[in-house]
Amino acid sequence: MKAGRIPLFSPTPHVPQGYPPKAFAGEVVPFGVVSFREGHDRIGVHVRLTDPSGGESLHRLTARQDGTDRWIADIALDVEGSWRYRFEGFADDFATWAHAASVKAEAGVDIAVMSALGATLLTSAAAEKDRPAAERTRLRAAVKRLKGADAGELTAVSTDPALAAAFADRPMASLGSVTDWLELTVERARAGVGSWYEFFPRSEGAVRRKDGTVKSGTFRSAIKRLPGVAGMGFDVLYLVPVHPIGETNRKGRNNTLTTEPGDPGSPYAIGSPDGGHDALHPELGTEKDFTALLRAAQKQGLEVALDLALQASPDHPWVAEHPEWFTTLPDGTIAYAENPPKKYQDIYPLNFDNDPEGIYAEMLRVVMHWVGLGVRIFRVDNPHTKPLQFWEWLIAQVNAKDPGVVFLAEAFTRPAVMRALAAVGFQQSYSYFTWRNTKAELEEFLTSVSQETSDYMRPNLFVNTHDILTEYLQYGGRAAYRIRACIAATAAPTWGVYAGYELIENVARPGSEENIDNEKYEFKFRDWDGAEQRGESLAPLLRRLNAIRAEHPALGQLRNISFHWSDDDAVLVYSKHLDAAFTGTGHDDTLIVVANLDPHSVRETTVHLDTRIWGVQPGDGFEVEDLLTGAVWSWNDHNYVRLDAFAEPVHILRVKERS
Amino acid sequence: MKAGRIPLFSPTPHVPQGYPPKAFAGEVVPFGVVSFREGHDRIGVHVRLTDPSGGESLHRLTARQDGTDRWIADIALDVEGSWRYRFEGFADDFATWAHAASVKAEAGVDIAVMSALGATLLTSAAAEKDRPAAERTRLRAAVKRLKGADAGELTAVSTDPALAAAFADRPMASLGSVTDWLELTVERARAGVGSWYEFFPRSEGAVRRKDGTVKSGTFRSAIKRLPGVAGMGFDVLYLVPVHPIGETNRKGRNNTLTTEPGDPGSPYAIGSPDGGHDALHPELGTEKDFTALLRAAQKQGLEVALDLALQASPDHPWVAEHPEWFTTLPDGTIAYAENPPKKYQDIYPLNFDNDPEGIYAEMLRVVMHWVGLGVRIFRVDNPHTKPLQFWEWLIAQVNAKDPGVVFLAEAFTRPAVMRALAAVGFQQSYSYFTWRNTKAELEEFLTSVSQETSDYMRPNLFVNTHDILTEYLQYGGRAAYRIRACIAATAAPTWGVYAGYELIENVARPGSEENIDNEKYEFKFRDWDGAEQRGESLAPLLRRLNAIRAEHPALGQLRNISFHWSDDDAVLVYSKHLDAAFTGTGHDDTLIVVANLDPHSVRETTVHLDTRIWGVQPGDGFEVEDLLTGAVWSWNDHNYVRLDAFAEPVHILRVKERS
Repeated sequence: MKAGRIPLFSPTPHVPQGYPPKAFAGEVVPFGVVSFREGHDRIGVHVRLTDPSGGESLHRLTARQDGTDRWIADIALDVEGSWRYRFEGFADDFATWAHAASVKAEAGVDIAVMSALGATLLTSAAAEKDRPAAERTRLRAAVKRLKGADAGELTAVSTDPALAAAFADRPMASLGSVTDWLELTVERARAGVGSWYEFFPRSEGAVRRKDGTVKSGTFRSAIKRLPGVAGMGFDVLYLVPVHPIGETNRKGRNNTLTTEPGDPGSPYAIGSPDGGHDALHPELGTEKDFTALLRAAQKQGLEVALDLALQASPDHPWVAEHPEWFTTLPDGTIAYAENPPKKYQDIYPLNFDNDPEGIYAEMLRVVMHWVGLGVRIFRVDNPHTKPLQFWEWLIAQVNAKDPGVVFLAEAFTRPAVMRALAAVGFQQSYSYFTWRNTKAELEEFLTSVSQETSDYMRPNLFVNTHDILTEYLQYGGRAAYRIRACIAATAAPTWGVYAGYELIENVARPGSEENIDNEKYEFKFRDWDGAEQRGESLAPLLRRLNAIRAEHPALGQLRNISFHWSDDDAVLVYSKHLDAAFTGTGHDDTLIVVANLDPHSVRETTVHLDTRIWGVQPGDGFEVEDLLTGAVWSWNDHNYVRLDAFAEPVHILRVKERS
Repeated sequence: MKAGRIPLFSPTPHVPQGYPPKAFAGEVVPFGVVSFREGHDRIGVHVRLTDPSGGESLHRLTARQDGTDRWIADIALDVEGSWRYRFEGFADDFATWAHAASVKAEAGVDIAVMSALGATLLTSAAAEKDRPAAERTRLRAAVKRLKGADAGELTAVSTDPALAAAFADRPMASLGSVTDWLELTVERARAGVGSWYEFFPRSEGAVRRKDGTVKSGTFRSAIKRLPGVAGMGFDVLYLVPVHPIGETNRKGRNNTLTTEPGDPGSPYAIGSPDGGHDALHPELGTEKDFTALLRAAQKQGLEVALDLALQASPDHPWVAEHPEWFTTLPDGTIAYAENPPKKYQDIYPLNFDNDPEGIYAEMLRVVMHWVGLGVRIFRVDNPHTKPLQFWEWLIAQVNAKDPGVVFLAEAFTRPAVMRALAAVGFQQSYSYFTWRNTKAELEEFLTSVSQETSDYMRPNLFVNTHDILTEYLQYGGRAAYRIRACIAATAAPTWGVYAGYELIENVARPGSEENIDNEKYEFKFRDWDGAEQRGESLAPLLRRLNAIRAEHPALGQLRNISFHWSDDDAVLVYSKHLDAAFTGTGHDDTLIVVANLDPHSVRETTVHLDTRIWGVQPGDGFEVEDLLTGAVWSWNDHNYVRLDAFAEPVHILRVKERS
C-alpha cells in the first residue's frame, strides 16, 4: 500500500527530469503537497526540513483555497548545502472538533455531546508535558468551562483564538502519514541573483594608432573601465574568452572568410602556439595581469565570470597532442565544425566519444585551473553541442571541490534541451527573454520561468549579447532599450547587459540579428564618458535600476511575480511582493511595474490590480512612489496610467506602507 | 551520473501520483519519451515491451515534429496482465551519414570523404550475420557503388529507400542508453469500454394495486426488461443496491424525514433484520432469483454491476455485532452521518479507524461474496467518504483474486481526490461530464480526460443518474437529451444512461438538480413500449448510438479525440481516428462529430477540419456519411453545416475511404 492514512501526493519543489531541486541562498521556496482526507474532518500538513548541518525544523502548511487540495508553506532557505525535506499529514483533531462544535452550538444541537468530546480532547492536550505551563493552565480552564456548557459557552470555547493559536503551534495530530525524505540543494546567492555586464577586454583601452593599426586593450587597461561598470551597480563582469586565438582560417570583420592585417580574430577560435584553454592571449597580458584584474574587480564589488567555449582552432595545442579528441576523416584531415553543408573552418569540435576519459579529465583540469586563480563563475558557450552527461559529470566534479562555482548555460536551443541542461547541473541559463517582446509573450515566458521551471532553472535575462540584437531593439530606438532594461532588471533576479547597450548600438548587419561590425571580429572604441556627458547614454538608467534592485529584496526573488490586467494590449503590468517575514526589514516589500511595450507611442490606459497580494482589500487606497522619477500617486485597484515611449515608458512603483 | 549518452527523460505513460499506469485490453497506448543529443547527428529511440507471459517486442518511436523533442510510438496492448517497458536511445549512424552525405552531394562538397565513410558503415552492416541474406547482398552492392562515387552516385545511395528501410528495421545503433524498466497494468476491455444502463430492479415490474399500494418489482420481473435494455445495445446493467433496507428513520418521498405507509425507503440505507451487505431484499427475491437475473442478463449480452455503498442503516446487523465499526458518542449513541450541522439520520457511517483490520476483512468478504455469485463490476457509492488507502487495499486484494473485477468510482468531488481514487486502483470514474455543457467546457474536459489523466483515469460519461438532472437537461427539452447522448456515446469509450432518460424525464424537484419524485424513495412506473410506439422515446437513438459504437473501433479508444474549429461558439466539432493498423479491418476508422450545443436554435456555420489526422491533405475532398440519417456529403477541410436543434442537432459522420 502506498497511500498513507492522510494521502500526500505530488510534493514540490520537484524536477520532472528526476534530479534534486535547487534553490539559492536566501530564496523563498514554496513547499507544497496535495493532501486531503475522506469526509469533512480537518487535516493539517507539516514539512520537516533538515538543514546541511543536520538541524531540523517543522513548518505548518496552509491550504490553498482554490479547490486543488494543495497545501503550501513559503520558507526562506538561507544556508548553502544539501537539505532534506519530507511532508507529514495528520488529522487535526482540535480543528475538527472546534469546527463541528461551533456550527452545532450555533444550530443549538448536540451541545452536551460536543462539550463532552471537547473536554476529553482538551484534557488530553493539557496532559502533554511539553506544552508551556501557561498553555496547559488555559487548557484546564477550558475543560472546566465545557462542563455543563450551554450553547454560548460552547461557542466561546470552540472559537477562542487563544486556544486556536495553541493548537496551531502544536496540533492534536492523529492518523499521521509521512512522505519519503526528499533532497534539495541550496547554492550560493550569486547562482540566483546578479547583475551581469559583459565586455571584450581587448576593446577596453584599445588604441587606434595614426597608421590605422590598433593597439589591443589589455587586462591592465581594462581595469580602468571597472569603476564605470561597478558604478552602474553591476556585480558580475563577464569576459569573452581571454585565450590565445588561432591564425588558421581566422575570420575577418563581419564573419568574413578572409582577414585583413591586424584583424584580431574571434576569441571563440581558441588556441594557438601560445597555448590553449589554460593560457592567456599574449596581447591581453600575463597571468599576473589577469589576477590583477580579478583583484581590482573584487575591490569594486565585481566578480569576474570567464567564458568556457570547449572547441579548438586548428592551431590549438590539443590538435597535435591529442588528435584522438577530434574526428579524423578517411582522408586524414580533422573534421571542421559543420551543420551540413555549412562548415566553420576556424573551429574543430571535440569528439567526446573517442576518448571520453581523457577529454573529461582535461576539461576538469582547465576549469579547476581558473578556479585556482579565483574564478568562480563560468559562462558556458553552446553547451547543447556537447554531451549532456558530460556537463552533469563536470559540474558535479567542480561543485564537489567548490560548491560555489556557478555555470551559466548559453543554451539557445529547444526547450527540452535548455531545461535538461538546467536539471543536470547548470546554475543559470540564458533564456528566450530576448525574443519575448509582446505582452502575451512576456506574461507566458515570465510565468513559465517563475513557476513551471523555477525549481531547477534560473533565467539570466540578458537584454542583448554580442551575438543578439533583436528586431525590437533594431527598430525601437531609445525607448526600446529603456523598456527592455527596466523589465529585465525587475522581472527576474538575474539580468545582464553586453557593453554598448547603454550607447544604444542598434545597427544590425543587414539581414541578421546581430550588430554590424560584430565585436567578435574587431576592436570597438566607445566614448563612455562623452556619451554620458552629452546625455546620450543609458548608464544613468542602468545605475538607477541596479540601485533599485539593491534596495528592494522583492527583486531578489524569482518566484514572486504576479501579473495584473491592463486594458491596453501594449501595457504590461506585474508586481513583485515579498512578505515582511523575509525582507529582513520587518516590512513588506512590494513593487508594481507598468511598462508600455510599444516603443513608438504614448499609451493611456487603466490598470487593474489584485491588491490582495500585498494585503490591501479591493477598493482600499494606497500610495505608490515611482522609483524612476520620484512621483507619488494615490492608487487603488483601478488606476489610470499614461506612459510616453519618448519620456518615461515604464513605471517602477514602490507600494508605500500605510503609517 | 543519471543522464545517459543519449538522454531519455519524462517517459509516458506516467501517473503523477506514483502508481503504475493502466490500459485496457485493446487500448492503443502512446509510449513516449523526451530524447535528443548534442549537435546535428541523428538519433533513434525504441521502446522494449515485455508482455505478461514474458514475451519481448521492440518498437521504433518517431519524433514529434513540434520542437518538444518528444518521441512517440502508438502500440495496441492486447493481453491482460502486468507489462514492463523501457526506452532505449541510440545514435542512428546510418541516418546521420545519409543526411550529411545527401546534402553534401547536392552541394558538391566532400564527395570522396562521405563516400568512404559510407562504405565503412555499410561494410560493417553487411557483416552482421543476423541481417537477411538479401539485405546483406544489397548492402555489399551499395559499398561497391560508393567506391569512387561521384555526387550523383553518392546521392543515389544515400537516399536509396531500400537501404533506409533496411536500417529502419535494424539500425546501426551506437552510444546506446536505456531507462529503468517501468510497469503498466492492462485490465480487461470492460474496464475501459462499455455502454451502461442503470435501473432500480424494484421498479421493473412493480404494480400499483387498486388500493393504491404497490407490489414491488422483483429480480424475476426485472428479467422481463432485459431484452429492452439489451435491445438498445447496452452491455452493462447497473443495479442500485439490492440489499435489505432499514426501517429506522427511513426517508419518505422526495427525501422527507417521515414516511407514508408503503414507502420503500432508499436502497442506500442498507441493512435490516433481514441482513446487510451480503443479503438480498426479500421483496426482490432470493439468491436463486438473483442468480437467475445474472444468467438471463448474460444471455442477453448484459453484464450486471452491483452498487457498493459502504454504510449502514441503524438496523444493519453490523450495528449490534460490531458497534466498534461505528463512532460511539459520549452519550452512548452512535453518530449519524453528518455534515455539521446537517444530519442524515437514516445512515451510520463506518469509522475505519476503530478496527481497521476487522472492517477491511469484512468489506473484502462482502465483495468476494458477490464475486462468488458471478458479479465482476461494482459501482462504488461515494468512495471519497472512505479512506483512500482502504480502496487501494481492497481493490488490490480483489484483483489479486480476480484481476477482471472492475470498480467504478462515484467520486463527485474535487479533482485531486477523484484523480487519486483512479490512481490507487479504481478502473473507472464518474466525471464532471454532466456539468460540462458549453463548447469551451467540453473541449477542456474532454482534452483533460483523453490526454492529461488517460494513463490512469477512465471517465464513464453518464448523461444522467438518479441523483443528477442538470439544468441543461431540465431546460433544454428533447434536443438537450439527444445532444448529450450523442456526445457521451462518441467522445469516450464508456458511457451510461439512467433509466428514464429515453423518456425525457426532465422535471426537477424545485431548487434541486435531481428529478422530482426521486426513484430512490419510491417506485416508478414507466411505459417503455407505449412511449416508443408513440414516437416519444429516445430508445431508437440510443439503439443507433450503441450500434455505431459497435461498428466503429475508433469509438472504443479514449485517447484518440481531436478537436476542430467551427465559426460558431455553440457548434462543437471533434474527430475520433484509429489507424488501420489497429482496427482489425485493414482500414482506417474515422468519425467526425459535429454537435449543435444550443438546444433552442438552428445553427448554421462553417467547420474547419485538420484533415491530415486521417491522411487527407488540406484542400483535398473526401466523402462523409451521416450515420444517424444516412445522408452523404462531399467534404473538404472547410464545410458548411446546418444543425437544427428540433430535427437533427448532431452529425455523426463516417469518413469514407477513397476507393
